Parts: sequence; C-alpha cells; structure tokens
Amino acid sequence: MQQKRKIINDPVFGFINIPNDFVYEIIQHPYLQRLNRIRQLGLAAFVYPGAQHTRLLHSIGAMYLMNETISNLMKKGHEISTDERNGALAAILMHDIGHGPFSHVLEHSLVPNVHHEAISLLLMRKMNNEWNGKLQTAIDIFTDNYPKRFLHQLVSGQLDVDRLDYLRRDSFFTGVSEGNIGSARIIKMLDVKNDSLVVESKGIYSIENFLMARRLMYWQVYLHKTAVAAEKMLINLLARAKELTQQGYNCLPPLPSPIFCRKKHR
Amino acid sequence: MQQKRKIINDPVFGFINIPNDFVYEIIQHPYLQRLNRIRQLGLAAFVYPGAQHTRLLHSIGAMYLMNETISNLMKKGHEISTDERNGALAAILMHDIGHGPFSHVLEHSLVPNVHHEAISLLLMRKMNNEWNGKLQTAIDIFTDNYPKRFLHQLVSGQLDVDRLDYLRRDSFFTGVSEGNIGSARIIKMLDVKNDSLVVESKGIYSIENFLMARRLMYWQVYLHKTAVAAEKMLINLLARAKELTQQGYNCLPPLPSPIFCRKKHR
Amino acid sequence: MQQKRKIINDPVFGFINIPNDFVYEIIQHPYLQRLNRIRQLGLAAFVYPGAQHTRLLHSIGAMYLMNETISNLMKKGHEISTDERNGALAAILMHDIGHGPFSHVLEHSLVPNVHHEAISLLLMRKMNNEWNGKLQTAIDIFTDNYPKRFLHQLVSGQLDVDRLDYLRRDSFFTGVSEGNIGSARIIKMLDVKNDSLVVESKGIYSIENFLMARRLMYWQVYLHKTAVAAEKMLINLLARAKELTQQGYNCLPPLPSPIFCRKKHR
Amino acid sequence: MQQKRKIINDPVFGFINIPNDFVYEIIQHPYLQRLNRIRQLGLAAFVYPGAQHTRLLHSIGAMYLMNETISNLMKKGHEISTDERNGALAAILMHDIGHGPFSHVLEHSLVPNVHHEAISLLLMRKMNNEWNGKLQTAIDIFTDNYPKRFLHQLVSGQLDVDRLDYLRRDSFFTGVSEGNIGSARIIKMLDVKNDSLVVESKGIYSIENFLMARRLMYWQVYLHKTAVAAEKMLINLLARAKELTQQGYNCLPPLPSPIFCRKKHR
Repeated sequence: MQQKRKIINDPVFGFINIPNDFVYEIIQHPYLQRLNRIRQLGLAAFVYPGAQHTRLLHSIGAMYLMNETISNLMKKGHEISTDERNGALAAILMHDIGHGPFSHVLEHSLVPNVHHEAISLLLMRKMNNEWNGKLQTAIDIFTDNYPKRFLHQLVSGQLDVDRLDYLRRDSFFTGVSEGNIGSARIIKMLDVKNDSLVVESKGIYSIENFLMARRLMYWQVYLHKTAVAAEKMLINLLARAKELTQQGYNCLPPLPSPIFCRKKHR
Repeated sequence: MQQKRKIINDPVFGFINIPNDFVYEIIQHPYLQRLNRIRQLGLAAFVYPGAQHTRLLHSIGAMYLMNETISNLMKKGHEISTDERNGALAAILMHDIGHGPFSHVLEHSLVPNVHHEAISLLLMRKMNNEWNGKLQTAIDIFTDNYPKRFLHQLVSGQLDVDRLDYLRRDSFFTGVSEGNIGSARIIKMLDVKNDSLVVESKGIYSIENFLMARRLMYWQVYLHKTAVAAEKMLINLLARAKELTQQGYNCLPPLPSPIFCRKKHR
Repeated sequence: MQQKRKIINDPVFGFINIPNDFVYEIIQHPYLQRLNRIRQLGLAAFVYPGAQHTRLLHSIGAMYLMNETISNLMKKGHEISTDERNGALAAILMHDIGHGPFSHVLEHSLVPNVHHEAISLLLMRKMNNEWNGKLQTAIDIFTDNYPKRFLHQLVSGQLDVDRLDYLRRDSFFTGVSEGNIGSARIIKMLDVKNDSLVVESKGIYSIENFLMARRLMYWQVYLHKTAVAAEKMLINLLARAKELTQQGYNCLPPLPSPIFCRKKHR
Repeated sequence: MQQKRKIINDPVFGFINIPNDFVYEIIQHPYLQRLNRIRQLGLAAFVYPGAQHTRLLHSIGAMYLMNETISNLMKKGHEISTDERNGALAAILMHDIGHGPFSHVLEHSLVPNVHHEAISLLLMRKMNNEWNGKLQTAIDIFTDNYPKRFLHQLVSGQLDVDRLDYLRRDSFFTGVSEGNIGSARIIKMLDVKNDSLVVESKGIYSIENFLMARRLMYWQVYLHKTAVAAEKMLINLLARAKELTQQGYNCLPPLPSPIFCRKKHR
C-alpha cells in the first residue's frame, strides 16, 4: 500500500513534499504551529505590505532546501544515513521555535539578553523528552556536537539553508527582486571536503551574488529605517508598560494595538 | 517643485504609485489601516500557508488596476474627469472597509444578517462627513447612483477590478498557479458602449480564462473543505461564547486562540 | 567515484539533470541536435517575437516531465523498470525528430501527405539499427506496442508530457500568460488504473484548466491569423518554386528570405 | 477618433505599447526587421538553449525602458519635448542595427576592425536621408551632439537602458536568475543634475546589484568558455574559407552548418 503523501503548497518553491511521518509530526507539534502566527519580518510589514509570511512557512521552506541539499550531496557520493537526514531535517525545522512575537523586540524587553536560539534549544530538549529521545540527533546537529560537522554547517553557517530560504522568501513577499538568489544553483554547487561544506569553484559568482543579495536585503528591508524605528517604539512601549504594571497599573492587550493602561481599582 | 511621490512595493504588480494626495489620505485613514490586520483569505491560510496577505494590500492593488483601466479607457477616447477618476479610485479603495475579522464568520455571528458591503457604505458615509463631502462622488459610484454607470461596473460587476485583483493576488500568495489571470490583457480589452462596460471581441478567450480561473479558485481555495470546516467551527465557537456570556460567563480573547470562558466571580 | 553530471539550464523548469549516459547520447545525436535549429512555433514568431525557442529544448523539457512523472508513479507503488524508464525517456526525447523546418509547411509542400510522426519513427528505426537495438523499448512505447500501455499514453495521449511541456513553454516564450498550466500539480495527480493513465478526482479542476489553456493557446497563438497567413504564403511560395524548378529555373535559398529564381544558363 | 494602437507581447515586460506612428515606422523598416534574425547572444545558445531571443526584441525592450525613463524624468520636473522623446526612442531602437550575424565574429572576420556602432551610424544616416531628416535628433543624441547630454547617456552610458534591457532579458532567456536586475526600481531612482544622469542616493544598493549582476552575467554567460570557443572556431573557419576562396575554391553556405569548399570546376 502506498503511504498517504502530505504536500504543502508553497508559492516560493511550489509543491513541498513532507518526506515522512517523523517530519510531519514535528510540523504538527504546537511549538511549530505557534510559528504560523509569527511574521518572519515582524514590523517590516509596515514598509512592505506583502511581507506577512510566517516563520512556519520559512521553516518548512528551509526543510525543503535541506532535503534537496542532502539528496545532492548523496548523489556526489557522500554517505548520509536516514537517521542523519532526519536529524538535519528536524534541526532546521525547529531552528526558529524560540522566536517570540516581534522577535528582536522580545529579546530586548520581555526576556532581555536571552538569544532566541537558546530558547529554541530549550524547547527542542523538552520535545525530545516527550518523544523519548527521538530528536537527539537533531539536537546534536543543532548544537554542533554531531561528528559529521557539515550537517551543522547546513543548519547554521555562512551558507546555510536558513539563509538560502529567507533571502528568496523575503525577496518574494516584499517584492524586492534583487534578493532573489539562485538557491537551486547554489545547492548544486555545494560539496563536502574534510567534513566541511565547500563550494565548487565554478559556483563562485553565485556565492558573490548571494553575499551581495544578502547585504542588499539588509539595507533595503531588514534595516529599513521605518521598520527599525517601529521596533524601537515597540520596545520602549513595552518597557513603559512594564514600569506602569510594576506601579500597579493595569495594561490591556493585545499588541500591536495601542496599549491602554489604567490605574487598577483597589 | 516636484511633489513627493509615494510608492508602495507590491510583490504582485511591482511598484504601485499613489497617484495623488487624495488617494494617499484615504489609505492613511484608520478605517483603511485596519484592513492591514485582516487577512484576505481568512482561514484558508490553514490550507495555503503563504496566503497571509491582507485586505489592505488587495484594496491598494485593486486601486492600481482601476487607475490603469481608466487610463486605458481615456486613451480609447472616453472622457473621464479628474473628479470621476478620484471617485472611482476612492470607491474601490474603500469597498472592503466593512469587512470584519474572518469576514464571513462575522456575518454569521457578531452581526448576523448584515452584509459587509452595508457596513462599508456606513463607514464611507461617516468619512464623507468628516471630510465635508469630498467622498460624495465615490459614494455615488459605489451605490450606482452616478450617471456614468460603467464606473460602478468597474467597482462591482461581472468583470470588476476587485475580482481582477483578488484572483491574481490569491493565486500569487497561495501558489495555485491556475488562478493567475492575465489582468493586463483584460484591461486592454475593456471598452465602454452605451454607458456599459464591454470587452473587445478578440478578448473573448481571456474572458473565458478569467471565468475558468475564478471557478477553479473557488473550488481549490475559497471553498476548500478544510477552510470551510474551520470557518464553521469558529462560527459555532463564537455562538457558544455568546451563549455563555449571556449566562454570566467571562470569555477571554484573543481569537483565534482557544477561547477560555469561566464563570464570573461576583 | 561520482559520475560527471550533465545539467541543462532551462528558463522554464530551471536546472534539468540529464539522468544518465543513455539519455545524454541521444541528445548528442545529430538528429536531435538538428532540432536546435527548428523553432517550436515556426512562423508564429512573426506575431510573438519572443517565441524563438527550438524543438530541441521542448524535447528536453518533455523528457524532464516524463522523468518526474515516472518518479511520481513509482512513489505511488507502480513498478517501472530501468529499461522501461529509459524507453519512455528516449521515446519522448525523439518524438519530434521527424519535424522539418516550418513543420506544417513541409508536410504540405516538400513531402506532401507524410505526417511528421511517420518520419520520426523512420529516423528512430535508423538510430536503433546504428545502436544495435538499444532503442527497441523506446520504439515499442512510441508505436504503442509495449505491454504497459500507459507509457505510450504518457508519450502521446490526451494528457501526455508533450502537451504539458509545450503549453507551459509556449506560454512562457510568447508571454501569453493564460497558457501557463500547473504542470507540477497535474503530474502529482496522475495515476495508473487497469494499465491506463488516470487522474485523481481532486485534480479535476487542474485538468479543466489544462483543457481551457490548450484551447486558448490554439486560438491566441497556434491559429493566430497572421501566423496562419504567413504559413499559407510560404506553402504557395514553395509550390511555385517547385514549379519553376521543374521548368528549368534555378531558385536560390535560403529561406525564409525571398526566393529568387532565374532561368538556368545552359 | 482613437488611433489604432499597436501592442507587442514581450514575455519580459508584458505588453509593450508602440507609442506612436514614428516609432512604428522605424520598427517596420527592413534594417530593424533584419535584427529579428540575429540572436542577441549569438553562439551562447550552445550553452543556454533557451537563449534564442533576437536583437529586434531587445531593441524594442530598450525602447520601452527609454519611454518609461523619460516619463519618470518628466514627472520629476525635467522638460523633455516630443521631438526629444522621439529622438531618444529612435536612437535606442536603432542602436544595434549595425550588428551582423554572430556580431563579434563579424567584427573579426568579414569587416575586420570596424565596430558595429560605426555601421549602425552609417545605416541611421542612410535612413535619415530616405526620410528627409526626420532622424536628425536621434542621430544627434546617438553621437552625443545633442545639447541635453543626459539623453545620450540614456542611450549609451554606464547605466543606459541598453544594459538595463539586455541584463534582464538575457537573464530571462538563459535561466541565469542572478542577472535579473530590478530595472523598474533603477528607473524610478534616475534623475538629472547639471545635464548629467544621476541616481538618488537611496538607489545605491540597486546600482551595486546592477553592477554585480552585470559582472556575473559576463562570467556566466557572455564569456562562457564554450561560447567563446565556438566563436573562435567560427572566426577561424571564416578566415580559412576566405583563404580558400581567394585560391579559387567554392565554399557553400549556409552558416552555421559546416562549410564545405571544393575546387571550382571550369
């Protein structure tokens, strides 16, 4: 009997097959589903109104690119076991689960000085306990404690599938066409040498283009003055709300609506 | 001195120029800005995770198509005054301001039996008062009380710019490529005869394609069983919450999180 | 050792991998390479100046879709051997090798009443002799003499990969966006029942869209009055040239430049 | 009465309106139509089989971008007369009419040491005589003898519409996505200061992207080793054919088929 295949319709990469039940279960987990209410670009949507895409879709897109990359590396003769493949897929799927709403805002206000990756790891460990260690390989890859270190580099490195996905995706949804890197080409150029991710020499121009696109997206989108200003305002708003709350005021959600605080009646 | 030009970056149509200050002011109004937190496709985002686009961007896209259409009709020799043009632009911009969250849900629960267009009109009239009648032409066009009736047909008819925008836009963000109609071609084929919108005969295949694309989008997206089921569940949820509230329970927002209701302490 | 992978850059489908040496050799054969000088749309390029794409690229694109389709059918549990896969790939690659320049023109002038498919088969048999029967499975599939008849249907049927490729490709290069069918979706919906190609029921709208797109492309492109007129003129031109030649005149190529004929000096 | 509008369907920019009869007549001229048989990328089509697009379509695309640019500059308050606009449109339309088949090959063989721009100018002057001086402004702009020098810069400069078109177009037809510059954005950023073309400061990243894309296209496409090798072979082939012809041999066309030469019988 054929297995029921799950397919996700992604406007960026087309049909994305969920490769197996293990991956499917992770996507179904509430920690992942929560990401479907967090916008990838946070307040940059003020400037680019099309950029409403969520961190969940980004995570699934990165999982897709990881799957493509691993298939390519295997075709080039590198051995990657099913457990390793699943570990890498799980690690990239969950790399963002520690993100709060308006992520950088959160890091500067509600949980100051805690990087979102630390929270991601915390949640992964919690899931791993729930699931009797099924995520151990994923965690080892995520924390760079797995022997084949190139797998960690694919999750988090200078040329990881996280970046390959978000540049294309953010370019697609903002309409800033210059960020549209050739991810398929780059993936075809990737190889492994001495347990380290490398790029075939004829891929050098695609890499330069990737670096340039990244810089361009930073200046045109991620660090756009209006988005940065909105973020700063929100951080200050939250700080003030905290202050008032500590003074006994009552502040009404939800964000990002204006916060109204009033003295609690006693 | 040149005027400061406002441009919106739309991933569907590219750069959209805000044609003048009148249009700009409408977009800035809180009634319009509110639409930036209402998803065009509501709960269909459960099925098509990329479909997070908002009603504001749809309204702006439809305004863009209206502007293109009017320019084309004028090139074909039809007289359209600046006031009429602005009226049509304003009418299409505001045609959706009556939408509530999960619009059809709303129509079946919070304000039963009130169509969103009636609310749109209500809000337009309120704005018109605020602005000393500046929106009168827009309202006349919207309610089909304006002499040049083809302008109303462009706002709301069998082949209006509302549909031209949402089919392309929903196709773009869902990834359902079959909905991608050739809006530019259709607009070039539009003409006016006896005060009625008509299509040049050689445009017939584009129109058939448009009708087919519309039907396809209905079955594949708008009436997708999962989206419809989610909507039904939300309607029932709200009905139950209303019931409980009337019995003295206290229900906590926000939606679409689970609603927790508990007996109010007295 | 890893094999040298050959990749073709196709603007329509992105990178196309040449799956193996057998397929590569076929592409390299002069009969295939000749197709790189025959335009897919012949004289329709008068109307759609972007439509200069060749029959070779179309054949390679159809081969790519065949490969995708076979992978999908195998995932659904259907057994397809390596020989059968190669046979189907070869059959679709070579299905057009009988096309002459301005193919339909040719069929009405130089070799009247001979269909291009008959010439294709002739050339395939010639190649099969050269290659000691390596193309026998391909020929059997092409002529519908192979037991698994759905393979023939994929090469030539109501919903074959030939049509799936040319609709998308012709749409891409002409700029007639309505022809852009969702080939990836259709391929995912294909299945086999009683040795016959079938479509999953939920794919019905994609199929309707495919049929509509096909009709639209016929009227807007393939039967465009200017292209048809140009073809008729060329057929008459060639007929007259033939006549004059038989009367002892000397006609100078090349086409499609004006043909100058002058009386041979003796 | 409305004028019959001519529209060209361009897969890159969509519908291109022919702005007026003057421009239409130029496109109809045999010198322009000849460009419809010369491929923009010459022998690079060996490497990128989709790249069959012709110099005529490129010229028309560049004309379209010129028209957009001029409209934008006028919106920014710069005065450009109808004669100047037509001159600039004509100059860019005709800038490539001096190209021979396999253009760089030609420059190294048939007409050694004559740059194609010199031939373009020659042909423009011939047309100008035929047309009683109607192309004088165009020629003055082309040769940088027109007072408003920024018009010449738009035809031929560091950031001219020629480059804006060919980068996007060659990227589109080769499938090398990295060359896809944001031409619409760049055009919006162009301005004129002291009769010189300048770029608004916030456009700097688009310009960097443009430069990078250009470099990338040079290495990946224009200077691709296979295309360059094919060109060198053709140059040598032609040189040898010339030699043999001078020795009394008879060489049969057409190119790019192999050239067969045989001793003339007398």
